[in-house]
Amino acid sequence: MEDKQYESLLQKIKTRQTLNTDVLDEVMHSADIVAVLDEDDITDEDLKWFFSANDKEFLADVLEDADDKLQSRVVHQLDYDDIIKIFSYMPKDEIADILGDLPIGQRKELLNMMKASDSRELRVLLGYRDDTAGGLMTTEYIALYQDLTMYQALAKIREIAPKTEVISTIFVLNRTRQLVGWADLRDILSADPGLTIEDITDSHVITVDPLMDQEEVAQVVRKYDLTALAVVNRRHSLLGVITADDIMDVMVDEQTEDILHMGGVSGQEEIGGPIGVSIKRRLPWLVVNLVTAFIAASAISLFEGVIEQVVALSSIMTIISGMGGNAGSQTLSVAIRGITLGEINLKEDWKLVFKEILLGMLDGALIGLITGIIVSLRYGNAYLGVVTIMAMIGNLIIAGIGGYLIPLILEKIGQDPALSSSIFLTTLTDTFGFFIFLGLAKLFLPLLV
Amino acid sequence: MEDKQYESLLQKIKTRQTLNTDVLDEVMHSADIVAVLDEDDITDEDLKWFFSANDKEFLADVLEDADDKLQSRVVHQLDYDDIIKIFSYMPKDEIADILGDLPIGQRKELLNMMKASDSRELRVLLGYRDDTAGGLMTTEYIALYQDLTMYQALAKIREIAPKTEVISTIFVLNRTRQLVGWADLRDILSADPGLTIEDITDSHVITVDPLMDQEEVAQVVRKYDLTALAVVNRRHSLLGVITADDIMDVMVDEQTEDILHMGGVSGQEEIGGPIGVSIKRRLPWLVVNLVTAFIAASAISLFEGVIEQVVALSSIMTIISGMGGNAGSQTLSVAIRGITLGEINLKEDWKLVFKEILLGMLDGALIGLITGIIVSLRYGNAYLGVVTIMAMIGNLIIAGIGGYLIPLILEKIGQDPALSSSIFLTTLTDTFGFFIFLGLAKLFLPLLV
Repeated sequence: MEDKQYESLLQKIKTRQTLNTDVLDEVMHSADIVAVLDEDDITDEDLKWFFSANDKEFLADVLEDADDKLQSRVVHQLDYDDIIKIFSYMPKDEIADILGDLPIGQRKELLNMMKASDSRELRVLLGYRDDTAGGLMTTEYIALYQDLTMYQALAKIREIAPKTEVISTIFVLNRTRQLVGWADLRDILSADPGLTIEDITDSHVITVDPLMDQEEVAQVVRKYDLTALAVVNRRHSLLGVITADDIMDVMVDEQTEDILHMGGVSGQEEIGGPIGVSIKRRLPWLVVNLVTAFIAASAISLFEGVIEQVVALSSIMTIISGMGGNAGSQTLSVAIRGITLGEINLKEDWKLVFKEILLGMLDGALIGLITGIIVSLRYGNAYLGVVTIMAMIGNLIIAGIGGYLIPLILEKIGQDPALSSSIFLTTLTDTFGFFIFLGLAKLFLPLLV
Repeated sequence: MEDKQYESLLQKIKTRQTLNTDVLDEVMHSADIVAVLDEDDITDEDLKWFFSANDKEFLADVLEDADDKLQSRVVHQLDYDDIIKIFSYMPKDEIADILGDLPIGQRKELLNMMKASDSRELRVLLGYRDDTAGGLMTTEYIALYQDLTMYQALAKIREIAPKTEVISTIFVLNRTRQLVGWADLRDILSADPGLTIEDITDSHVITVDPLMDQEEVAQVVRKYDLTALAVVNRRHSLLGVITADDIMDVMVDEQTEDILHMGGVSGQEEIGGPIGVSIKRRLPWLVVNLVTAFIAASAISLFEGVIEQVVALSSIMTIISGMGGNAGSQTLSVAIRGITLGEINLKEDWKLVFKEILLGMLDGALIGLITGIIVSLRYGNAYLGVVTIMAMIGNLIIAGIGGYLIPLILEKIGQDPALSSSIFLTTLTDTFGFFIFLGLAKLFLPLLV
């Protein structure tokens, strides 16, 4: 997209010039038009004009590419008649997503204004949670009866293809409308016209339940490299189809959620968003962190007498606790990756903790040795160095155990490991780090003073 | 997939029973067969037998679904003749990926054994780095000249479709083989037979350069919801096509890379992998962390005299530094998410740092107040509480500034913000946290003792 087109569109919207959408469609992708509409300069009034004055089929494409925020702004500005017209060009799963974000009263009014068959389909889709297979699926797909001849099949495909999202995968049903397999459009195009669909049906079809969580759905799609995944009920009737582009959106959602959670931010937060949201998403975790910081600090309080006699301990102890936190985070991130990809779970893989213990011993010995030598030289006391080495090894072993087991245990009890693992881990490595180092120092106190 | 089939396949491999692959194909997906081959029980000998004794077209599907590690094990076991036969059923981009991981001598020998046209195509693909558009693209796509009639087009599609990865998007070329647009198979199926491809061509086609980084490629595919993305050279000749399933693999790679990097692990590491790899990926960062831990600890050393007089400071200071680290991580994760999604950059959005400063003040005031009150009561000295509040506010402001600007600056100078941001941030919040708290304590020392 060139900047010229971008500026020109912005100008036209501001000066209320009706658009030649056929030409615009050729030079700008709807995703780029959305970027213009997302500009700060675009007021609600501009949006209202844009979505009322232009071609509805064109607007349907634009609205489909918009994010939730822009979609809800648009729908709040428009007359119901215009909304219904634009919806008539949009796939049902997108409409359901938009309706799902509306207040219940508005949603009902819009549903009542639609064709009975459309609103019935939408009510079914609206019955599923956004983050489940049912919430992701579209009802615009191609399904054919298995007894159709190739000729009949191709005629049917020509007829319904323009209204569907996926055409390369055709789902195959028996006459009681149960899913019996899938066919590849390639085969239909090149098959002997005398054959029926049944002859080219692959009965090995991957299906999911409408209630399956979207993260699991994404794993299934990725594992089998599917372009379309069938959602079926218990009697194996085809309810809808999930397409690859929706899965990519899920993957981005889950990814950003994991990144935010690992940083201690609950739920979605955008960097330019309102400060109130930021406080709401972050403050609770800071308060939880504060409690754990006090727990770690109280480990120090226990040994104030020791610190008073060897004040050098107060700076060395932060190295021990800090390195425990760092080493633990490394294990944690590898473990969370394994859990996210569905590669490890507590029951089968708990034994791998021994590898982390060994790693903690090796890394701890090396890092401890470096630290111990520097400490010995700096304070002129070799015993201080020995205490440092021992404490470092101990804390890095604990870090490895915690970094591996904490996320697996949280996963096992149904918690999101990305969200709360690091809090438990830091509490563990800080508290234990202070405790083991100052405890050892107290034990060897006569040698240190 | 049922466990029975899984067990039965494992059994058959172990007892060297040649498989009826037509039947197996119906009941097990190749991704599930890969899961069986990934079992610890499967030896190199088993793999060698499996990939020599069975139908090569079937084996090509299985090998395509295998991960890098299994692919390289298989290729190392097999005779070159068998490899070449299996390759003949695989898409070129997959073959190039496998060849790219082989030692150069082996790669050359295999290329020399292939058909000249195949090896020429593969040499071109091998010329691109794995993580670029050129490395991702396939050369199996449908491209048609714009002057073909619908009848000619359909005949051509029927002929080449079985060998291509994508069929719903058809790329359109002029007679000098430049890409002029794309056509939708739906339109070709339903168009008037008298029209030519040019009549239904959409000239607004999204293209990328073969050298574009895979993360950017993924952003383009997601933004425009593409099922196939065209890779072109400077004179707009079509070099290859990137498909949605390859983009999903990229997204998973980038996601897991970000998670590992944020935890301080450089490069890929699997939880069950060899301990040597773990040490190699983790130890360098631990050493870097150790240096920064010493920097923070030396801020404490400066004030050892103060701590000797008010030993309570030694436990409170860890709360100040720890909370700075926590608050900074929150800002950091929101910023990294924004950078990953391409939503923010240093030049345009540096002003948002003021929001983070404000957040630091507000959160700092509240968290500081709670901490200050507890400290005052615990040690019976209100001034100690006041020092705590001031230090907490100061450190949370610095945390907000650092958490926001450090990743943006690293991105700007071409570094991966997920990998090194947290090290700089922790150094900042630890060092500054100790410094401001102990510095203030020194200033108000007469009131504290």
